[in-house]
Amino acid sequence: MIDLNLIGIGTGDPDHVTQQAIAAMNAADLILIPLKGPEKTELAELRRCLLAQHLNNPTTRVVEFDLPERDADGAPYDQRVSDWHDAIAQAWKTAITEALGTEADANVALLIWGDPMLYDSSLRIAERLGHRMQITPRVIPGITAIQALCAAHAIPLNGVGAPVTLTTGRQLRNHGWPDGVQTVVVMLDGDCAFRALDPAGIEIWWGGCVAMPQERLVAGTLAEVAEKIVTIRAALRAELGWVMDIYLMRRTA
Amino acid sequence: MIDLNLIGIGTGDPDHVTQQAIAAMNAADLILIPLKGPEKTELAELRRCLLAQHLNNPTTRVVEFDLPERDADGAPYDQRVSDWHDAIAQAWKTAITEALGTEADANVALLIWGDPMLYDSSLRIAERLGHRMQITPRVIPGITAIQALCAAHAIPLNGVGAPVTLTTGRQLRNHGWPDGVQTVVVMLDGDCAFRALDPAGIEIWWGGCVAMPQERLVAGTLAEVAEKIVTIRAALRAELGWVMDIYLMRRTA
Ligand SMILES: C[S@@+](CC[C@H](N)C(=O)[O-])C[C@H]1O[C@@H](n2cnc3c(N)ncnc32)[C@H](O)[C@@H]1O
Ligand SMILES: C[S@@+](CC[C@H](N)C(=O)[O-])C[C@H]1O[C@@H](n2cnc3c(N)ncnc32)[C@H](O)[C@@H]1O
Repeated sequence: MIDLNLIGIGTGDPDHVTQQAIAAMNAADLILIPLKGPEKTELAELRRCLLAQHLNNPTTRVVEFDLPERDADGAPYDQRVSDWHDAIAQAWKTAITEALGTEADANVALLIWGDPMLYDSSLRIAERLGHRMQITPRVIPGITAIQALCAAHAIPLNGVGAPVTLTTGRQLRNHGWPDGVQTVVVMLDGDCAFRALDPAGIEIWWGGCVAMPQERLVAGTLAEVAEKIVTIRAALRAELGWVMDIYLMRRTA
Repeated sequence: MIDLNLIGIGTGDPDHVTQQAIAAMNAADLILIPLKGPEKTELAELRRCLLAQHLNNPTTRVVEFDLPERDADGAPYDQRVSDWHDAIAQAWKTAITEALGTEADANVALLIWGDPMLYDSSLRIAERLGHRMQITPRVIPGITAIQALCAAHAIPLNGVGAPVTLTTGRQLRNHGWPDGVQTVVVMLDGDCAFRALDPAGIEIWWGGCVAMPQERLVAGTLAEVAEKIVTIRAALRAELGWVMDIYLMRRTA
């Protein structure tokens, strides 16, 4: 039986790593480092840095392997994502069996950006892997981008006793401000979806590359800072070739 | 100028602590440990355990101090909470000035359950303290109960690209299932508010004392497991004198 450890490693700051994550790295027989796939190559650097700093079990093997690319078009979107997850599960299986042979019991680990529970596909890929070989998924939580954002701005996520909705740029663009909440956090936004909102009465706390050396933060009323965010985000992207950003918005009652 | 570090310490497992939290503990001139207040005394134990394990700066002073109790009745609820936060800010100020005298620059720290951003009053109390003395609040994120719950059940928080609402037991009881989301996380629920819902089509993942030695987990359709959760929660509370629980519910489309 293979224990498949999905280890959350935080969102940029190597010191986000928990004691539990460090212990799980050192308990692994095999750590898999995917070379392509959902995250930018630049972010693979954090994984190497964490292992260099914290992995001191000489019997742990670290194996880098290629991930399949997602088909650019053809089948409908859901089908393509599903096929891609199947292909990744297959790549995980191949990497595991090549490294471990027919070893019956082993501890395998993957280092996951942020926390595996939050807008991440590794638990769903692990489920597909479970159709191909006997595995038990284990999750080690890690600091998410939401926490990094709130910490950087030193703000609470929620109003006192009030609800919060976490959503994506696409949802915000297609469905507008979520019903029944005054606080909304937006992730996975490729194109500043906040511009689709009427800015009246909305405050925003934005962060690009939060908890990373390139971190940029902007806060203010949406009416006043929207254009500034668009400009800073574009500059970050031009500089790095990629950008990750996240924001929290609050509506006055 | 006083740096006031609100250090998230996770939700029960001492290994939730991050490298950043350990560094912040050791960078503090003064660590304040409140003896009463929002959290059960039992939970103060985690703080002592973390300090015993990770604090090795001999110049860091650890000071325990009494927190005021919240008035049981009298003024309206909001007013009482506000008065109580003011009284806590005053208690923080007294503890800081008693320990540090008139020292101009110092690093003060508080160890906060979970993450300071999530259903926690310390950032609001820090704001009130800021009216009384010059402070700069700094936040160190910590693993939240939401993450501990998802990790324990090895489940994702969100559906693929879908929104999630975080809310409280009181909100769920008063307003029912939040609009526009298939996933809801409920915290601060003193009384199994899920019983107020029509259980048809709802799945639940529940955890009591998650990531603690007493951890209990239940998952299933709400129709099938609701009574089981009520029973286990009551048993935990009878055993410990308190209980903390959290749950995630998903509605089939
Ligand atoms: C595929 S999701 C992964 C989220 C991750 N599992 C977590 O726990 O935060 C990627 C999205 O997370 C957010 N994100 C992750 N790291 C970030 C960072 N350092 N700064 C800003 N946003 C970040 C962005 O919204 C990005 O589009
Ligand atoms: C005042 S809030 C504090 C939340 C904390 N700041 C966090 O980040 O999780 C307390 C609520 O958190 C949840 N909670 C905290 N720790 C928990 C645990 N170990 N197990 C289950 N629920 C927990 C419960 O819903 C509880 O009512």
